[in-house]
Amino acid sequence: MKFASLRNGSLDGRLVLVSADLSRAVAVPQIAPSLIDALPRWDEVQPQLQQVAAALEAGQAAEAFDFDPQACGAPLPRSPQWLDGSAFLNHGHLMEQAFNTPPIPQFDTTPVMYQGASDDFLGPHADVPLPSEADGIDFEGEFGVVCGPVPMGVSADAALGCIRLIVQVNDWSLRALGPHEMKTGFGFLQAKPSSSFAPVAVTPDELGSAWQGGRVQMRLHVQWNGERFGEPHGGEMNFHFGQLVAHAARTRRLTAGCIVGSGTVSNVSRSAGSACIAERRVIEKIDLGEIRTPFMRFGDEVRMQARFEDGRDGPFGVIRQRVLAAG
Amino acid sequence: MKFASLRNGSLDGRLVLVSADLSRAVAVPQIAPSLIDALPRWDEVQPQLQQVAAALEAGQAAEAFDFDPQACGAPLPRSPQWLDGSAFLNHGHLMEQAFNTPPIPQFDTTPVMYQGASDDFLGPHADVPLPSEADGIDFEGEFGVVCGPVPMGVSADAALGCIRLIVQVNDWSLRALGPHEMKTGFGFLQAKPSSSFAPVAVTPDELGSAWQGGRVQMRLHVQWNGERFGEPHGGEMNFHFGQLVAHAARTRRLTAGCIVGSGTVSNVSRSAGSACIAERRVIEKIDLGEIRTPFMRFGDEVRMQARFEDGRDGPFGVIRQRVLAAG
Repeated sequence: MKFASLRNGSLDGRLVLVSADLSRAVAVPQIAPSLIDALPRWDEVQPQLQQVAAALEAGQAAEAFDFDPQACGAPLPRSPQWLDGSAFLNHGHLMEQAFNTPPIPQFDTTPVMYQGASDDFLGPHADVPLPSEADGIDFEGEFGVVCGPVPMGVSADAALGCIRLIVQVNDWSLRALGPHEMKTGFGFLQAKPSSSFAPVAVTPDELGSAWQGGRVQMRLHVQWNGERFGEPHGGEMNFHFGQLVAHAARTRRLTAGCIVGSGTVSNVSRSAGSACIAERRVIEKIDLGEIRTPFMRFGDEVRMQARFEDGRDGPFGVIRQRVLAAG
Repeated sequence: MKFASLRNGSLDGRLVLVSADLSRAVAVPQIAPSLIDALPRWDEVQPQLQQVAAALEAGQAAEAFDFDPQACGAPLPRSPQWLDGSAFLNHGHLMEQAFNTPPIPQFDTTPVMYQGASDDFLGPHADVPLPSEADGIDFEGEFGVVCGPVPMGVSADAALGCIRLIVQVNDWSLRALGPHEMKTGFGFLQAKPSSSFAPVAVTPDELGSAWQGGRVQMRLHVQWNGERFGEPHGGEMNFHFGQLVAHAARTRRLTAGCIVGSGTVSNVSRSAGSACIAERRVIEKIDLGEIRTPFMRFGDEVRMQARFEDGRDGPFGVIRQRVLAAG
């Protein structure tokens, strides 16, 4: 099933089911007004949602309407927790060189993860207000999973079974602020403003064989101001999502709706390009001897879309956003 | 005004006004069912709440009942964000020695702050389930503020005006996990399970002259298994709450209900004792040449209560909790 949340002035938005081709949608207030309302009682609502989804696909859903990604907020406009890993070790190793920080201990064997704000996510086409270009504005293309309730101390295998939905994320980052916050040991805060989400969250079965090994086996195509930036493959994730969820739940339970992110999608092969500017910059420094690419300017636009390995559009829809001066 | 949230099976609890002596309470469903519902429209609901509070004080509130702190969750059982500073530099400097970590850059001039989980706070008398004594179970006594909406880029002075309520917090910490998470640069995650709150959140005017300079001018009395542990004074905070809120809002707006914490209350004078075990341990190491105090065992109890400088009980009520093996 595919889900989106239409902006309706409420904090959680209005849940809709979306058709396979992302052309049609239907609200399901009789089942659940919002996605966050549905997630804690997933087993109960899933059969009813599947009935409506089947009717929508058959063109038989009463009150179906054209799906408009512009009208969407994030699939979960707010979530109980946003826990973002850095599971593509290639990215992490490059960022150590970019930030000139010491190697992260146990980086290859224990996931790293920060807790980000989860109360104010941005939709796929929302402008992104930020205070200053001098902060080093950067996008970060990621995949993420939305969990049902996760018990404290869950195993990585059992955690895979707690995954309800898969999402596509743009984890906005302010690169000039990151290194200082890492050095404090308290982690990212100012360096991580509100994250943005592609319009459609999907159940794992929607990915077919592209959901394998707890990883999204798709390429994330990134364009910056209309030019190709990269299309790294999600399958190169060094820790799978079950491992990330288990890491998050080591000393806490997760309430239904928590989102766990993969960190920037990143491939060892240079030909894949990158899903964030900071990574391209450090590659330029290594390969060309100098940084050539600046960070984003106000007015710049980023576009992200996952595609299957055979080139078909992914089910998440498109993130397409401009950064603007706040205030 | 004094507020508490009774557990009623909902995520946000049932809002009650509490009398000055914490003996009586009254629900206000006609004004706001929950505290998180009231905070975004504070200017609208404040006069109505004040009327009920006056009636409660005069013994004239219909349907008032005895206030039972045991029936309370946290004043905000969940909050949009929990942002915890480390504004008592004495504590920070001691913890550097305890953890044997390098000095935090700009520690004396720029607040440090981590983002914690805010979806699953514990009430004042809730048992605290944790996975292992080997994780180094520790309490941390703090004060915190609950904000109304805070715009991105707010000044420290203006941020003081965004503070709606003051709270008393026990920021549970797992000390064996903290140093590694600091070294990753991604900050605390597993080291910070759900925080706990004293039952009553109060408007700043309830503190009288004990709310001064953006600081809580009260002592936080901490007992561990019935024995005095310390009573450090909140006035020694090196950054005031307006500075902490402004730090949090540098690159993001804060939605109504975000909570900003002071970090462990800590005084330079050894005679004040400590509000967490880790601090006592490093003081023992420095002053006595050896660590003598172990961390908590399952079954241990901590009690925290703020008191005015003249010895009167503070308005927040009491935190009294046991740690237990999870599962």
